Amino acid sequence: MSADRVRDLDDPQLRAFAPLIYVAWSDQDLDADDRVRVLSDMTKQPWLRPAARAVVEAWFDPASSPKAEELARLRQLIEHVASTTSDGDAKSVADEIARTLGIFGATSGALASATPVPDAVEPAALADALDGDHPDVRARVRQWMSTPHRAYGLPVADYRTIVRGWMTDLASTGLPRLAFPGVTSTDDLAAFSAVFEELGHGDLSLLIKVGVQYGLYGGAIWALGTERHRQRLAKIASGEELGCFAMSEVGHGSNVAGVETVATYDHAARELVIHTPAESARKEWIGGAAHDARWAVVFAQLDVAGARQGVHAVLVPSRTSDGHPIAGVRTGDSGVKMGLNGVDNGRLWFEHVRVPVGNLLDRFATIDKDGVYASPIASPDRRFFTMLGTLIGGRISVGAGAVSAARAALAIALRYAESRHQFGSERERALIDYPTHQRRLLPHLADTVVLRIAFRELRKRHAKAFTGELGDTRELEAEAAALKGLASRHAIEAVQAAREACGGQGYLLVNRIADIRTDVEIFTTFEGDNTVLAQLAGKAMLGAYRKQLATGGNRAVLRAVGKRVASALGARRAGGEAVSDRAWQLAAFRFREEHLVETCAARIKKRLDDGMEGESAILAVQEHVVAISEAMAERRVADWFAATSVPAGSAGDLIKRLGDLALLHRLERHAAWFLETGYFDPTKSRAVRREVEVLLRELAPRAREVVDAFRIPDACLAAPIAFFDPAHPTYP
Amino acid sequence: MSADRVRDLDDPQLRAFAPLIYVAWSDQDLDADDRVRVLSDMTKQPWLRPAARAVVEAWFDPASSPKAEELARLRQLIEHVASTTSDGDAKSVADEIARTLGIFGATSGALASATPVPDAVEPAALADALDGDHPDVRARVRQWMSTPHRAYGLPVADYRTIVRGWMTDLASTGLPRLAFPGVTSTDDLAAFSAVFEELGHGDLSLLIKVGVQYGLYGGAIWALGTERHRQRLAKIASGEELGCFAMSEVGHGSNVAGVETVATYDHAARELVIHTPAESARKEWIGGAAHDARWAVVFAQLDVAGARQGVHAVLVPSRTSDGHPIAGVRTGDSGVKMGLNGVDNGRLWFEHVRVPVGNLLDRFATIDKDGVYASPIASPDRRFFTMLGTLIGGRISVGAGAVSAARAALAIALRYAESRHQFGSERERALIDYPTHQRRLLPHLADTVVLRIAFRELRKRHAKAFTGELGDTRELEAEAAALKGLASRHAIEAVQAAREACGGQGYLLVNRIADIRTDVEIFTTFEGDNTVLAQLAGKAMLGAYRKQLATGGNRAVLRAVGKRVASALGARRAGGEAVSDRAWQLAAFRFREEHLVETCAARIKKRLDDGMEGESAILAVQEHVVAISEAMAERRVADWFAATSVPAGSAGDLIKRLGDLALLHRLERHAAWFLETGYFDPTKSRAVRREVEVLLRELAPRAREVVDAFRIPDACLAAPIAFFDPAHPTYP
Repeated sequence: MSADRVRDLDDPQLRAFAPLIYVAWSDQDLDADDRVRVLSDMTKQPWLRPAARAVVEAWFDPASSPKAEELARLRQLIEHVASTTSDGDAKSVADEIARTLGIFGATSGALASATPVPDAVEPAALADALDGDHPDVRARVRQWMSTPHRAYGLPVADYRTIVRGWMTDLASTGLPRLAFPGVTSTDDLAAFSAVFEELGHGDLSLLIKVGVQYGLYGGAIWALGTERHRQRLAKIASGEELGCFAMSEVGHGSNVAGVETVATYDHAARELVIHTPAESARKEWIGGAAHDARWAVVFAQLDVAGARQGVHAVLVPSRTSDGHPIAGVRTGDSGVKMGLNGVDNGRLWFEHVRVPVGNLLDRFATIDKDGVYASPIASPDRRFFTMLGTLIGGRISVGAGAVSAARAALAIALRYAESRHQFGSERERALIDYPTHQRRLLPHLADTVVLRIAFRELRKRHAKAFTGELGDTRELEAEAAALKGLASRHAIEAVQAAREACGGQGYLLVNRIADIRTDVEIFTTFEGDNTVLAQLAGKAMLGAYRKQLATGGNRAVLRAVGKRVASALGARRAGGEAVSDRAWQLAAFRFREEHLVETCAARIKKRLDDGMEGESAILAVQEHVVAISEAMAERRVADWFAATSVPAGSAGDLIKRLGDLALLHRLERHAAWFLETGYFDPTKSRAVRREVEVLLRELAPRAREVVDAFRIPDACLAAPIAFFDPAHPTYP
Repeated sequence: MSADRVRDLDDPQLRAFAPLIYVAWSDQDLDADDRVRVLSDMTKQPWLRPAARAVVEAWFDPASSPKAEELARLRQLIEHVASTTSDGDAKSVADEIARTLGIFGATSGALASATPVPDAVEPAALADALDGDHPDVRARVRQWMSTPHRAYGLPVADYRTIVRGWMTDLASTGLPRLAFPGVTSTDDLAAFSAVFEELGHGDLSLLIKVGVQYGLYGGAIWALGTERHRQRLAKIASGEELGCFAMSEVGHGSNVAGVETVATYDHAARELVIHTPAESARKEWIGGAAHDARWAVVFAQLDVAGARQGVHAVLVPSRTSDGHPIAGVRTGDSGVKMGLNGVDNGRLWFEHVRVPVGNLLDRFATIDKDGVYASPIASPDRRFFTMLGTLIGGRISVGAGAVSAARAALAIALRYAESRHQFGSERERALIDYPTHQRRLLPHLADTVVLRIAFRELRKRHAKAFTGELGDTRELEAEAAALKGLASRHAIEAVQAAREACGGQGYLLVNRIADIRTDVEIFTTFEGDNTVLAQLAGKAMLGAYRKQLATGGNRAVLRAVGKRVASALGARRAGGEAVSDRAWQLAAFRFREEHLVETCAARIKKRLDDGMEGESAILAVQEHVVAISEAMAERRVADWFAATSVPAGSAGDLIKRLGDLALLHRLERHAAWFLETGYFDPTKSRAVRREVEVLLRELAPRAREVVDAFRIPDACLAAPIAFFDPAHPTYP
């Protein structure tokens, strides 16, 4: 070791440490304890050569704090490494750390004070920006929704009949054709999702009926079938052929790979024989199966010449055109539900029902004329997950629809909150002027804004995945799973808040919110139970981290530690005013995601080292795995919001501040975690809370303009309290 | 100032500081910074004489830390002050501080390790302990509930008819007579509340019909009427006379003092003329008004000879015996609701309806034969609040009923969680073995245990209030308001968790939880909106604090500061293992309540000093005021649980550990707040979380025994999933 500590650092093992050391000495807010922590994190790396460790230790000798000249040379080294090294990995580590710390001033501009909330907004600009993609398609849906489609408090049979009528009527607009791009439509894959989003402002039974008919039934034929199946799509789009999606079984709600229904190939007859071998294999909750559907896409274990090939989808007729069950098919009704009673969820049992082998949806698997089974995907597991991958679209649509449901409920509650005066006098305060009312509703309103943007981004990626542009789709699958969980939870909380904010009026069905609440309740369960999805997403994140460590080796470990230390230092360095700085917010979400992944991986590894079996080790930290999914979803939402372009002027400024509220409110929810990890100190935690309070006060007068910019037609909003006029009060 | 620092402290202004100084120097965990903080808190007191301040400063001279002998003398001084001083206030301050710090060893025994969760419990002992009071009355209710009283998914009219039939049938058991002690029953006031608690396990429409008929309608006559009115109570108890409680108006949901309905005294006819002057004065949400009630207790502004005397209650016939509205009375239906559709909520309008003056419920106000109005309570405001005070019973019953609803839903979900195996195989894990499932359900289960005990205590105090034993009832009113809020919120969260824990099965009405969920939803609104009640309770706490400062003067300020400092030091002193120590838990709840009150008072005072008007100053800190109510309720729940006696043996041990979970889970929820105030450091916060996790693992295998000890009859539990048998699975 020489006496030149800067030159000693110019070593492949040590270069990436340079930014950390620079910050540790140049930062005014760091004290000796912080430096010791940084040092200890660095020297803990088991792969450091003793000589390299000595170099690091020399930098932290409290008796020889570096002079300005030494720091300047250190900075030159950092810039040199960042700009010239051919070692891509080391460069990206250094870049990452430098960017996090803002050493090169990349984020210094963003530290300026936040955009103020404008006093007035341009309504059309705001509405256009909130709409985002497919404005023409959205306008067509709204046109249809401007005619009342409203029913409540009816007997189940009557309600089902009405909803079926709406679905047929919607088909006449041609909008459902958008569900099948390349076959019935020239539009892109995201267009139908935009239809779904707009329909989500209205009756949710209709939304789910539409989702089942076009998204699940038609979608399965479109995505899993081949040319001869796709010919049906025109009739499906017109509502002439009604079908259902028979996947779930009563004994296997969340475990779709474990369904028991069997499809046995009979070579002599060139037929598949569909059979329900046990009561637990009964198809259950199947939308459309109780009454409307004439066909079913049945998921069953395929048996070819005695060999089980895993779960496959087969097109099976379930009822005759006049609605009687086909011979061998037994149907039942799932019964009255908490909500969504316009959807005829039902049951199906199959008693050796025979269909031609051509009814196998055979994009990923075929049975040839010699009765030989073949698939381009060798592993039955991977084959099944490829087929399930086509369900991503369903998850994205359900999440996006949940956000629309929240928008509708919030629009009703906030219009009422602005016009209704507590204690009944125009002279007194409107409900929205009460801080508790603002706290109840506005963070959810802000959430709808950032979540809509997130689903727009997710749809783009999904479209790319379908055309193969995206490459590996595993990250998208994890994102769709995590975002569906986040959005459906958001919707339940937002609609619940809207219900409570309207008191007794919110409890009356005439005011819509109560039905939205009970309808949206099950969004956390269908298209994948949220807890199961969160584990799926969390495990995917852990897998990606493990892979990164395995391929990156020592450098990857360095990257992980360096990033965590750098983030923590960066956060502490920022003053109280920085919480409205987008870069600071994003860094906090990133820190949370990465810290949760690293610590979870460490906890699992410890259990494996102690001899625990894999599944048990993961189960032992199940809450931690689930937290990763939420943190990942929140980080994606924040990143995508930050990357989205907003219009110049007041509309854009308002959207930015809504984004501040959404992001800071999420960070506030996790304040205990950030305080425990030391990423926040109490001052920072208070600064976040105070900024949230400032935003609530500033945004309250704009809330009505925001919900009106949702462009929900009056006939769809429907609730009398949404049209309450304090000058001429009428009561529903 | 002498050289004897102990003797210098023996001064009226300084004695109460002695315990703080003792702790500051004797505690091993305190460092110099902590001592500086203690000193600064003390010397900040503006009322300290300069000489006294110098004494305090001398104690914190880092150059002269006290020797053991000096500390021993200091301790003698503390004991002397605590045991002999004739100044009651100073003594109580010293006692309080000493107790908080555990200096005299009062709580040292409690620092022993926690009671372990027993491996098995004695079912009857556990059930008896959870039952608590009035076991015989409860057994009678259960006997009645062992016959099925079950209806769901019916048209509103049919459901109402069935519930009315149940109510009449219940009357035949004689149980409703318990609602009117001293008139129709020799039992105490709490007996009927026990009936209400047991009924809360069943159909909640029935519960509310019972609450309206006996609690509100009969209760108003019993509490606000005099002898001639009370003669009706026998007929009311037998269900022969059905009535309603016409207080709420559509324009004045939460502001009952502002109702517009008028009762004008006509001296010539000796009649009261009841009139609805505007549409906003329409009586709304009135249970029973749509169909069943023949009589109404109408709340109206009493006008006697042109003078308004405030809101009074008048008995008014609303329908003839065959159900037609009385001339001048118009009735309407509030419409289909989210839940509770077995209750016929309706509307009433009065068109100059005349009733004899004797129909005035005149316990607190009379109109004599000369037409002169008189009341023992001079202020119309106080008079009204005295009348409203009789509603405390309703709030207590609603809160207790909400806890029962939570118990029923949790019983169904936990019985299912124990028997249903994820992924459908007996070899795999039961749902309850999953950490996320435990986290979802068990804290709520623990909450039901401590909340039942809290309502038992509240009922005792309410009975004392009615007989006048309690004296000032304002604290009880605040407690009832805050506890009703806490319990109804708890119920919503618990039933929601139960719904989600049962997935798709939980969404089917056949499994009961969905109806419990939508029924319990409005418990947060009726009998006082939770936010309005929380402000009432919070303001009462602030008022009590202000009064304490005003009467206590300097000493009260000292008490406040001393307690806060002492609590904070005490918490930091305790090691990680102390979180299961009941004394530590109670101190944390107390600190939270007191800190919130003090800081809220300071924030309001600052605004008043800045010239803000009173209501605006309070509104500006509305969230803070609401938080006080929750903190007060949580502290009461914790204190009453700690003070309750549990049986010796495994049942008592299990109840203690359930209490640990309930209390620690509440503290965990507030972790961010405790970390921000510095009461927790990250280590302590983690210790709380880890203890919660340990408790979840330990208590999961006992959950089924706990819910079975609720003694809910099978016919009442009713849900097929509550009786799922994995060996012979049948599916609803």
